[in-house]
Amino acid sequence: MHILVTNDDGINAPGLLALVNEMKRIGEVSVLAPDHNWSASGHVKTMHRPLRVKEAVLSDGTTAWSSDGAPSDCVALGLLGFIPGKIDLVVSGINPNANIGHDVTYSGTVTAAMEAAIGGVAGIAFSLHTPEDLQGSPDYSPAARMANRIVTAIIANDKLSNLLLNVNIPYLPDEQIKGIMVSRQGLRVYRDRLDRRYDPRGKPYYWIGGDAPTAVPDEGTDFGALEEGYVSITPLQLDLTDFRAINTIQNIKW
Amino acid sequence: MHILVTNDDGINAPGLLALVNEMKRIGEVSVLAPDHNWSASGHVKTMHRPLRVKEAVLSDGTTAWSSDGAPSDCVALGLLGFIPGKIDLVVSGINPNANIGHDVTYSGTVTAAMEAAIGGVAGIAFSLHTPEDLQGSPDYSPAARMANRIVTAIIANDKLSNLLLNVNIPYLPDEQIKGIMVSRQGLRVYRDRLDRRYDPRGKPYYWIGGDAPTAVPDEGTDFGALEEGYVSITPLQLDLTDFRAINTIQNIKW
Repeated sequence: MHILVTNDDGINAPGLLALVNEMKRIGEVSVLAPDHNWSASGHVKTMHRPLRVKEAVLSDGTTAWSSDGAPSDCVALGLLGFIPGKIDLVVSGINPNANIGHDVTYSGTVTAAMEAAIGGVAGIAFSLHTPEDLQGSPDYSPAARMANRIVTAIIANDKLSNLLLNVNIPYLPDEQIKGIMVSRQGLRVYRDRLDRRYDPRGKPYYWIGGDAPTAVPDEGTDFGALEEGYVSITPLQLDLTDFRAINTIQNIKW
Repeated sequence: MHILVTNDDGINAPGLLALVNEMKRIGEVSVLAPDHNWSASGHVKTMHRPLRVKEAVLSDGTTAWSSDGAPSDCVALGLLGFIPGKIDLVVSGINPNANIGHDVTYSGTVTAAMEAAIGGVAGIAFSLHTPEDLQGSPDYSPAARMANRIVTAIIANDKLSNLLLNVNIPYLPDEQIKGIMVSRQGLRVYRDRLDRRYDPRGKPYYWIGGDAPTAVPDEGTDFGALEEGYVSITPLQLDLTDFRAINTIQNIKW
């Protein structure tokens, strides 16, 4: 089992290290991650410029690679041959914040897993639902152990093929996690506001600010599962067709 | 009818100008587009830095705004209040290449329309399936007239609410277009290859190259419609849940 580990917070993020160490218990691990933070960067394919890849060493001495590309570029580089040998699984994370609802199309963590799926390799995104007051120094160990448990179960059940999963883990000690719930994507509620400010020369600039997003905790959804204390596993697909809307649109006289 | 027009090729792209001019026949038009090309940039929300917005003038004298943000940032800026007044519709394009199959998650043109939908406003992405030998100087006029026809029909049928459409237009004169087909997302076939090169100092760099992507022209799909000479309209949704996979995953003993 050859596992490629990446993330969107950058090669030095503690969530990456925690995930790498747990994946090493399962198989051979290659690490190729961005050299800086790419949060909310979306699904990128960098073709207009070349990508650099440097050797890196994680804080525990693990050898790794860092690239100036996006998370999805790191996956593309790995699958297109930068990493020698066949890759069986791409895991991404652990992101310090949940990726739920509409976050999936913005999230570098999730789009890295999408890039794997497009390349024909299973992809799993792991995110931790860290409470606001613990932002900055969350403990990733319980979440990493959960990632190990999930990957191990999927391999044991021979379910790797065509797999694209968005996993969100509540910030709870192992014994308080109620279980694992297979969920559907829920509804994010963004509370963005536009801040208009003025630079020292009196020229305006704009910052997308506002409050942290919330979500609708409907039963059976990603956020609903998290709120009840469950690990949420949402299987994703890359076909965005709105089949219900086809009928509505079909009747239009163009 | 207040229409915000953006794109991912940048404020000076001729496809934007063609779309702006046709939308002016339908309603009040505001233009806010990136100041440079953002192709394959994905769904971006720029929060780690401020965004600048400058006054711009299109080549026909139309006043516009350009921003250093991504296409989706331009839409967010517009909807969050940079553009005064209510916006009824966001259109994006005209992209010089088709956005079909898996392109939808990479495409700046499509993710701009997604950002509109997340903000509660109808979003339509327009792309032209320009043949390889005409890349660089396609004629956008027939496609822009088609965009007008589509938007006009949608407004006349009162179908703007919750609308997210990915429209691809074949590169054909008006009279050779067979009609408009409501389609589902098809399968892209990427043919990327990794080029390893060496810089003047002997250090390696990597370029994602290879051949242009193809697609599977299945009947009823976006690419199938284009190949038959139809305009393809694919309604998209932002719920990526793979409901069929839920059952498969549900049976795993974690």
